[in-house]
Amino acid sequence: MSKDIERMMQDIGQRARAAARVLGYAGGEARGTALRAAAAAIRQSVSQIMAANVEDLDHGRAKGLSAAMMDRLALDSTRIQAIAQSLEAVAAQPDPVGAVLAEWDMPSGLHIQRVATPLGVVGVIYESRPNVTADAGALCLKAGNAVILRGGSESFHSSRAIHACLLQGVRAAGLPEDAIQLVPTRDRAAVGAMLTDVAHIDVIVPRGGKSLVARVQDDARVPVFAHLEGICHIYVDAAADLEKARRVILNAKTRRPGICGAVECVLVDRAFYEAQGAPFLQDLIAAGVEVRAAGELAAIPGSVAAQDDDFGREFLDMKVAAKIVDGVSGAIEHIGTYGSNHTDAILTEDDAAAEVFFARLDSAILMRNASTQFADGGEFGMGAEIGIATGKLHARGPVGAAQLTAFKYLVTGDGTVRP
Amino acid sequence: MSKDIERMMQDIGQRARAAARVLGYAGGEARGTALRAAAAAIRQSVSQIMAANVEDLDHGRAKGLSAAMMDRLALDSTRIQAIAQSLEAVAAQPDPVGAVLAEWDMPSGLHIQRVATPLGVVGVIYESRPNVTADAGALCLKAGNAVILRGGSESFHSSRAIHACLLQGVRAAGLPEDAIQLVPTRDRAAVGAMLTDVAHIDVIVPRGGKSLVARVQDDARVPVFAHLEGICHIYVDAAADLEKARRVILNAKTRRPGICGAVECVLVDRAFYEAQGAPFLQDLIAAGVEVRAAGELAAIPGSVAAQDDDFGREFLDMKVAAKIVDGVSGAIEHIGTYGSNHTDAILTEDDAAAEVFFARLDSAILMRNASTQFADGGEFGMGAEIGIATGKLHARGPVGAAQLTAFKYLVTGDGTVRP
Repeated sequence: MSKDIERMMQDIGQRARAAARVLGYAGGEARGTALRAAAAAIRQSVSQIMAANVEDLDHGRAKGLSAAMMDRLALDSTRIQAIAQSLEAVAAQPDPVGAVLAEWDMPSGLHIQRVATPLGVVGVIYESRPNVTADAGALCLKAGNAVILRGGSESFHSSRAIHACLLQGVRAAGLPEDAIQLVPTRDRAAVGAMLTDVAHIDVIVPRGGKSLVARVQDDARVPVFAHLEGICHIYVDAAADLEKARRVILNAKTRRPGICGAVECVLVDRAFYEAQGAPFLQDLIAAGVEVRAAGELAAIPGSVAAQDDDFGREFLDMKVAAKIVDGVSGAIEHIGTYGSNHTDAILTEDDAAAEVFFARLDSAILMRNASTQFADGGEFGMGAEIGIATGKLHARGPVGAAQLTAFKYLVTGDGTVRP
Repeated sequence: MSKDIERMMQDIGQRARAAARVLGYAGGEARGTALRAAAAAIRQSVSQIMAANVEDLDHGRAKGLSAAMMDRLALDSTRIQAIAQSLEAVAAQPDPVGAVLAEWDMPSGLHIQRVATPLGVVGVIYESRPNVTADAGALCLKAGNAVILRGGSESFHSSRAIHACLLQGVRAAGLPEDAIQLVPTRDRAAVGAMLTDVAHIDVIVPRGGKSLVARVQDDARVPVFAHLEGICHIYVDAAADLEKARRVILNAKTRRPGICGAVECVLVDRAFYEAQGAPFLQDLIAAGVEVRAAGELAAIPGSVAAQDDDFGREFLDMKVAAKIVDGVSGAIEHIGTYGSNHTDAILTEDDAAAEVFFARLDSAILMRNASTQFADGGEFGMGAEIGIATGKLHARGPVGAAQLTAFKYLVTGDGTVRP
């Protein structure tokens, strides 16, 4: 059985490589046409997609998925329209392929251009959220890459319905169907085959929880855009504005507690707490969030005493850890110890404190006076994202189409020789 | 013994990590001071460096290194001055760290900056060329990275003498000495330890021949900036200018046959050959190059009949393969089959042919009417290079300081929440 899977995955890989060669020279116009046609197909298939999603939701309920997981999995017509909009937003982005990234002349007489090229074949391994099928497929296609999508078993039917719409788009534009392939099995051996297929896959993007990413990082021979968990912190500085803090923290936790940009730990400067308390934590409790508070903060009515392992934890749920720290350096130390280099925010009116926070921390995204829920390719203007990379090589932060390209140098002389 | 090496390498890794943390916040001024002081130390140590190099050359001669290898290894005062100049050129480059790579506003009210940051710790594994010690050390420092240098046993003494000068510079600037460490043993177990030290090394740059790079790619758990061999092609198109072709090809092979940018295969368009012959190959023969010619070209007096494995071969010597192809598509097919995605050139006065060559091939560097010997960070205006990357992730082509950085996003709002 596993031999069959391997043979199937080799075939998928070969077809992706062949499609990538064609896509590399297909114009941006054809890729745009494919994306717009796919969006139209999504809009025309709302009921089919919802029916497929119901199958997945029934399955998820039977499996006892958490509320946050069920929220990630669920589609309604609003979310399906958002998927179509996202495809259109990606289509509307400037074509990243062929973009002249830099251009200069040398004293030798050479003219040098650095030009964006497709990466080649991208493998995407993800879990429950079905819209990843559309976003990842669209972004890879936008950047001229072939993609092999391996969705989670929870979203198997939803992903298949969305993939069918993407294929309609690809066909409408006369592009090779193998440009966007969805692995047609739930067998986990398929993942292993992708991770080691260096001949056909140029980069793997894992998108999911800690255990998925850990497995990918351990087993992959193909390079990985590491997407670790989002243990996002918000630090309330001595010079924070209380009203902004209340607004931002409530949003950062409760808007969608299940996304990777949801805040998981609130750090409160000691001086701030002594002067103004922590009404933002009381707001959270009032909104139904379980606040796991350390030290003095545990005196807040309705809070729960924090355990040590509540820090550095990705709840992805209506839970948050909270702690008092000593100033911006205390916050930096805590985040350096417990953070995941995803997204961390400072709330302050003090430019100097913000500058230190921005300079000393090395998270993919650092924010000031903004909700961590903005950690998202769409909110960064990328149309969509294939994930948030927390590693440092090639892609970092929200990964949009431009991050899915490589480049080459084009050098022009006139019979120029090197002395 | 190997246990001791492992312990030593762990210690080197930890010290590099600690130094990287300091370097991340050290200003560009201190890094510039260190580089200029290192250059001064090199200039003051010419005789010591040459004495160390003599030891290496004696050793190399005894080992029977090829002429090309000996050329790579040899230092004279001109080359030592060039090392110092290269350090100064790197110092004079704009500081890549903290550079705002992009900046934009979103309708949500967020202001987003993408800012360059150091990568962290870079491991460089290289072979005979001693100037790599200076260039790699300088470029990593320039980009705010700590570096662990593991030079080839052939250049052991030369590298040590150059490293001592780098340390003088680092000390003069008050930066941590562990910023630039040279592995103090020829034991190959040190390489294995570096390749798997994901905790302390963020990226490995191998610089050397095929077997070194293959070993690194096979064994590394740390990400690698793949630096494959330079199987550089020059294609003489139907519309090539004969005089430019003679000038460029002679330079591309004979200027320094041992560097990775040396041409290894000349492809001649059939129509060009029928009209004008291949006097550039006769020039090469006259200059002492062994021309391994296939098909009709073997009729050229003084040429040698090519064997199949002469194509796709990196001679790094006064040898070159030559073959007739049918037009630019024949050249593209040959290069696609035998090339190494390093540097490939077309000689033509025909814009359309050049455009096809530039669009269809995906080498890191594509050239028109210029010598492949220009494939070099210095010649690209980077001050120096740590190598030529032939992979597609993160760095590609000549790797200068700017390619040794990562980036982070700095996002500023005003109590901004996500709807």
